[in-house]
Amino acid sequence: MNKNYYAILMAGGVGSRFWPLSTKEFPKQFHDMLGTGDTLIQKTFNRLATIIPKENIFILTNELYNDLVFQQLPEVTKRQVVLEPAMRNTAPCILYASLKIQKENKDAVMIVAPSDHWIEDEAAFASNVKQAFNFCETNNALMTLGITSTFPNTGYGYIEYDKISNNNIKSVNQFREKPDYKTAKSFISQGNFLWNAGIFMWSAKSVVEAYKNNQPELFALFESGIDTYNTDFEDDFIRDNYSKAENISVDYALMEKSKNVFVLPATFDWNDLGTWGSLYDKLDKDNNDNAIVNSQVLSEDASGNMIRTKANKVVVVDGLQDYIIVDKEDVLLIFPKAKEQDIKKVLQKVKDQFGEHLG
Amino acid sequence: MNKNYYAILMAGGVGSRFWPLSTKEFPKQFHDMLGTGDTLIQKTFNRLATIIPKENIFILTNELYNDLVFQQLPEVTKRQVVLEPAMRNTAPCILYASLKIQKENKDAVMIVAPSDHWIEDEAAFASNVKQAFNFCETNNALMTLGITSTFPNTGYGYIEYDKISNNNIKSVNQFREKPDYKTAKSFISQGNFLWNAGIFMWSAKSVVEAYKNNQPELFALFESGIDTYNTDFEDDFIRDNYSKAENISVDYALMEKSKNVFVLPATFDWNDLGTWGSLYDKLDKDNNDNAIVNSQVLSEDASGNMIRTKANKVVVVDGLQDYIIVDKEDVLLIFPKAKEQDIKKVLQKVKDQFGEHLG
Repeated sequence: MNKNYYAILMAGGVGSRFWPLSTKEFPKQFHDMLGTGDTLIQKTFNRLATIIPKENIFILTNELYNDLVFQQLPEVTKRQVVLEPAMRNTAPCILYASLKIQKENKDAVMIVAPSDHWIEDEAAFASNVKQAFNFCETNNALMTLGITSTFPNTGYGYIEYDKISNNNIKSVNQFREKPDYKTAKSFISQGNFLWNAGIFMWSAKSVVEAYKNNQPELFALFESGIDTYNTDFEDDFIRDNYSKAENISVDYALMEKSKNVFVLPATFDWNDLGTWGSLYDKLDKDNNDNAIVNSQVLSEDASGNMIRTKANKVVVVDGLQDYIIVDKEDVLLIFPKAKEQDIKKVLQKVKDQFGEHLG
Repeated sequence: MNKNYYAILMAGGVGSRFWPLSTKEFPKQFHDMLGTGDTLIQKTFNRLATIIPKENIFILTNELYNDLVFQQLPEVTKRQVVLEPAMRNTAPCILYASLKIQKENKDAVMIVAPSDHWIEDEAAFASNVKQAFNFCETNNALMTLGITSTFPNTGYGYIEYDKISNNNIKSVNQFREKPDYKTAKSFISQGNFLWNAGIFMWSAKSVVEAYKNNQPELFALFESGIDTYNTDFEDDFIRDNYSKAENISVDYALMEKSKNVFVLPATFDWNDLGTWGSLYDKLDKDNNDNAIVNSQVLSEDASGNMIRTKANKVVVVDGLQDYIIVDKEDVLLIFPKAKEQDIKKVLQKVKDQFGEHLG
């Protein structure tokens, strides 16, 4: 395996649209969302480990989840876990991790990937990443994997690439934020728009260069600690300085500003598992089109439901269509799938009325 | 308190229409169905204890529930717990208990009462029972309390009394089993029909006499053990003989056959808590007409629901009308109130598919 290959696994999210399963204390990426026996972060780690040496996979997360990471990824060492002492979106933490990796290996090429997405075809994923890595090794490029957009989804960002190129790897014209429905439809019909899955690849050299050019202040902040990185003094520096960083996404900080951005259209099927409904879409269904994780269900006149409980709990459901039914120790949610975008609001109400500990 | 007053509390039922809360292992009468802090058998015991010496209240139950009785009624002694070694309906066990009581106190008058009903006005109940006891002390009478029938319920038995009498205590013409709707309506319009609540009162002498006359075989079986009752030899006799008894209800064995049957129309409000729907009717409602026991509920467009969980569990429910939502450790039921009579069938299916332990 190529020792220059690295990964930064983004594992600091809260996944509040998967409440009540996902909570601030125990978010989505640490759950076995699909009922396969592996948590999402375990699946993602193992997928990356087919092409990247395990010891080169770094986990970027919040101090809150330090213990969960070591529990779920016992092969990971302290060196590989990069903790954000404050929530500052993706640009600061990716810069920080990139500088650490570059200091360790100046020839590093890396993938930055979410820890909580679903990818079925792992071989295609590995093949796509290798192709991108090859490109990044020889070009000063910021690369992304774009997902073939199958319908005008208004919940994703889009990547517009240069139509003219015949290469697999396309030059990116621009990133487009979540569009309205009409705009999304026009994107699809134009044929050169892909979904932005938040998967980035670049050499350490290229990404550090991009920060230097596009985010000089942020770069200066983290560059000033370079002597401490990968030493005993690193924690002190980060604790004292991290919170000074601007709260800004890597999309906005680098990708939308750089000229050397490229996209490889992914050849694998992908799902961001963003909501209970998207999880429902990915799961096998029973004879009544119910998606069931862990439960033993007796249903009558009930279809299209997403049902999840602890292992082997019996659920008797009669007369419900297209509901999310999620049961946890202290919370039971019975909620229409069509209103799943309201779950964040519901969570806020629950916390206001019954206590912060429930979210 | 009158030392001749006795009670037989019927506590052997399974209450399967309250599944999943009520199970064979832990049936309805041992649950705090109303969320008041007392279980139904505790409420019933305390209600009887206002007029009957505590040590004269006997609990008739199944061996399975022996421990539950002592846990929930710690003031009760072994002498007061009469165990049926086999399920033989109400006539055998009432005869057995009556003979034991008569042997202990030949002047006993007693009430036989279910342990799992709801009675709000305890003072009215006490007053009605005393009135009936007075009558039973001086008359060879089999008495019952009849409940004023407020609508043509087809789920109850009815008691038809003699219209002509001006006394409070009426002579009974006949008992009528659960009628069809048309018949029930005609009962109501006739004005001399009451609901049979399964509450009986008589002197030990009268009830033993009635068994002797109407059920000579049953009487002979239990009379043959009279020397052993209230002695160390009783358990052996009962173990060897109880299962020989005919499986027959006291209604059928005595009340429908005897001429000396009387009814006192009850002056208290009563509910048999026979189904989740009847429990719903008795509970206080929130602003959306949901009846909630133990749960903390956030509801949207949800009304008329009967919701019960363990204490303080948060339930978020959106868009459900007139449902039974009952959550237990290993079972979650989401079921239309209108179909509550099917819960027994559902329970059977659950046991067949997922295991007997769930019922």
